[in-house]
Amino acid sequence: MKKLNVLIFAEDITQLEHCKAAYPNGLHEAIGGSLEAGCVNIRTAVTENVAEVITAEVLAETDVVIWWGHNQHHLISDEVAALVMTEVQKGMGLIVLHSGHIAKPFVWLLGTTGHLGWRQNCRERVWTVSPYHPIAAGVPAHFELPEEEMYSEPFDIPSPEDTVFIGWFAGGEVFRSGVTFKRGYGKIFYFQPGHETYPIYYNDIIRLIIKNAVNWAAPNVRREFFGCPNMKALEG
Amino acid sequence: MKKLNVLIFAEDITQLEHCKAAYPNGLHEAIGGSLEAGCVNIRTAVTENVAEVITAEVLAETDVVIWWGHNQHHLISDEVAALVMTEVQKGMGLIVLHSGHIAKPFVWLLGTTGHLGWRQNCRERVWTVSPYHPIAAGVPAHFELPEEEMYSEPFDIPSPEDTVFIGWFAGGEVFRSGVTFKRGYGKIFYFQPGHETYPIYYNDIIRLIIKNAVNWAAPNVRREFFGCPNMKALEG
Amino acid sequence: MKKLNVLIFAEDITQLEHCKAAYPNGLHEAIGGSLEAGCVNIRTAVTENVAEVITAEVLAETDVVIWWGHNQHHLISDEVAALVMTEVQKGMGLIVLHSGHIAKPFVWLLGTTGHLGWRQNCRERVWTVSPYHPIAAGVPAHFELPEEEMYSEPFDIPSPEDTVFIGWFAGGEVFRSGVTFKRGYGKIFYFQPGHETYPIYYNDIIRLIIKNAVNWAAPNVRREFFGCPNMKALEG
Amino acid sequence: MKKLNVLIFAEDITQLEHCKAAYPNGLHEAIGGSLEAGCVNIRTAVTENVAEVITAEVLAETDVVIWWGHNQHHLISDEVAALVMTEVQKGMGLIVLHSGHIAKPFVWLLGTTGHLGWRQNCRERVWTVSPYHPIAAGVPAHFELPEEEMYSEPFDIPSPEDTVFIGWFAGGEVFRSGVTFKRGYGKIFYFQPGHETYPIYYNDIIRLIIKNAVNWAAPNVRREFFGCPNMKALEG
Repeated sequence: MKKLNVLIFAEDITQLEHCKAAYPNGLHEAIGGSLEAGCVNIRTAVTENVAEVITAEVLAETDVVIWWGHNQHHLISDEVAALVMTEVQKGMGLIVLHSGHIAKPFVWLLGTTGHLGWRQNCRERVWTVSPYHPIAAGVPAHFELPEEEMYSEPFDIPSPEDTVFIGWFAGGEVFRSGVTFKRGYGKIFYFQPGHETYPIYYNDIIRLIIKNAVNWAAPNVRREFFGCPNMKALEG
Repeated sequence: MKKLNVLIFAEDITQLEHCKAAYPNGLHEAIGGSLEAGCVNIRTAVTENVAEVITAEVLAETDVVIWWGHNQHHLISDEVAALVMTEVQKGMGLIVLHSGHIAKPFVWLLGTTGHLGWRQNCRERVWTVSPYHPIAAGVPAHFELPEEEMYSEPFDIPSPEDTVFIGWFAGGEVFRSGVTFKRGYGKIFYFQPGHETYPIYYNDIIRLIIKNAVNWAAPNVRREFFGCPNMKALEG
Repeated sequence: MKKLNVLIFAEDITQLEHCKAAYPNGLHEAIGGSLEAGCVNIRTAVTENVAEVITAEVLAETDVVIWWGHNQHHLISDEVAALVMTEVQKGMGLIVLHSGHIAKPFVWLLGTTGHLGWRQNCRERVWTVSPYHPIAAGVPAHFELPEEEMYSEPFDIPSPEDTVFIGWFAGGEVFRSGVTFKRGYGKIFYFQPGHETYPIYYNDIIRLIIKNAVNWAAPNVRREFFGCPNMKALEG
Repeated sequence: MKKLNVLIFAEDITQLEHCKAAYPNGLHEAIGGSLEAGCVNIRTAVTENVAEVITAEVLAETDVVIWWGHNQHHLISDEVAALVMTEVQKGMGLIVLHSGHIAKPFVWLLGTTGHLGWRQNCRERVWTVSPYHPIAAGVPAHFELPEEEMYSEPFDIPSPEDTVFIGWFAGGEVFRSGVTFKRGYGKIFYFQPGHETYPIYYNDIIRLIIKNAVNWAAPNVRREFFGCPNMKALEG
């Protein structure tokens, strides 16, 4: 089987004191650890070099982009966001993690705000509501995250194609924690867990879900835009 | 505005000791109380007379059926279930309450089992996740039911057209508590709250939701089946 | 019943020689004629004054925008497109006509390109495939447009909520001619017929469809953005 | 890769004079010819032996059922239809061909009538409207069937998950010729071409579509019904 090319964009949190306990080596390594060594080629980007790394050429040979953004959304240029959006429309997969719910490429592809409510530090139990979905393969009926940032409905997204997971929070909230969309030739998965101060991405079930999602989102066909051709009359 | 004709099917619980505190006069009165006196004509049925009340003629002039069933599903004949299913396909609205999740007309219209997990006596908080939906008009972002039967995901339904409400349970579960579907000309709303031992149907918000749902499910067009006609060639 | 406020944006074609036979008074009058005098307040905009007419204040009191654009899409500023997109997300209805399939507010709300194939001058027969939909009320099973611009699949849109109409073209093509979407609190209807050189908008069935669509798209609730609030812990 | 177990149900047309030119060896051989020899195990059934072949045991080890029925729908017992429906809900794939649009297992899974209009002998052009779908892999933008039975909208199905193909008929009709649904763990594909008097199933593109559909519909997970368990309280 062909190796998948995965590009992980994540803000660089290695200098943030409050994140060091959870992610001493930053997010890229932790997220990339979900993917089977030997089965993927991983490229990484941070806000500081995103315009150099994320080019049309690189995206053209990328199967799936994983996007983790938090408080640097405004530093991502419209040009970079447009490149990602356009490549998803051509078939590249996109996995948006946690606070990426308002990342430009995601909300541009959805056409909604991605808004939600939130609160620090809450126990979460994630429920698998679409056990038939490839992203849920091997995932138990429910599993716990002892500490997570709470995200609450209403979540301003279009009706998802599949609601794969719903999160229950000990504080009393619910959230559609795993949802899928299609745009053009491309598949999109949003997944809520992953706050930068909790070691979520070292959790084995979370890693399985990310691995499943990458395999699911990998393009089965990759096409140029069809544009708006002036069509010749057909025979008959 | 024309008065709506609403038919309420509910099992007769007036002889059940454990239900008397919550529903001294049974479920029909409590559910019917959601609807504005003067705006609807209400007809009622119980399991014992369902075959006499639910006839093709009666359904043909019924706008919306509300269905509450619990442990008498097997006493509903296939003929009655087929009449309800067929009339929904022609445009009649159907509102399925609580343990009606495995009622014949509902699962026949969905094509899935309606299965779910459950447990007695749990505090529930209902979240409005599609605040834009007519069924949610005037409903707060969330509201509480101090005691309800717990219903848990996974809920075996097709991907809903809209997930209007999601229930959070203090015991740690979540459930898609309000979901909509369309079949043929007809609209269907499933709503989870309403156990027979808790006075859920006297709650003002629940009553608002049922009223909204009846108005939403009322047919905007009512048609005979089109059948499978052998069509004449069109001109041109 | 409250009068609806409808804003019709259309490019000014009154100086174009090849459009004068079909629309001697331009498109605004023809499209506006679909709506029942006395039931709506109509405001109009053209490319030349769109930034003055389409302001946040005007949109806040507009129920439905009808958008007809053709070869001036690039003259619509990002600011105007963003205002329309944002207001749809808050509940304003949007009806996009014909060559508006690549208008900024539309493709920004969809997250796809809106691309399609086309050819001048073809006979079209429009089929009602969702006869249950309010937009199809009173519309026959099929009807003909002796001359229309041909639009062909594939049409790069997300899976529609409802495919209300499909167009058949005598040259051998098909097109999803009437499709609905929801974004945030707002409803969107795209409708293909309406080339500027054929008097489509004087056709009685087309007018009925536009009137139905305006009534369907009118907001049932209008809300401020909810933003991303830091939520207080709930009691319990 | 594991060999797929495919069960082809088709009415026996080998004794029908008017079908002999198109299908001298009947439909099973023609349909089965779509699948790569060596990659599948094929089992066949006809109306006369369907109750012996289609048992719970056989279905439990079947990956995909292909169903072609025409005028013997009423001879399929409710028991057989229920077995197929139940197994699809557990994950078995189902591909319904042509006049199977009113076959019991199909309409039971959809909850609609499957009704449509029809007429003999019409040229059809099939358009790929979801080129991103695995079922459309390698299928051209459009292709022709010189002779087919015409099927016309409105087609009484729920809104499909994906409309993969739309048929254009020279007589002036359109039809959603390839549509997908999910029910429980199972995937369903309906495909319109395949009248018994035209050699449709020897067409290379049709064969590619059927092969793609079998691969797409093969279960990625197979589960027992979860039933309605009385759940123990969770910790916390």
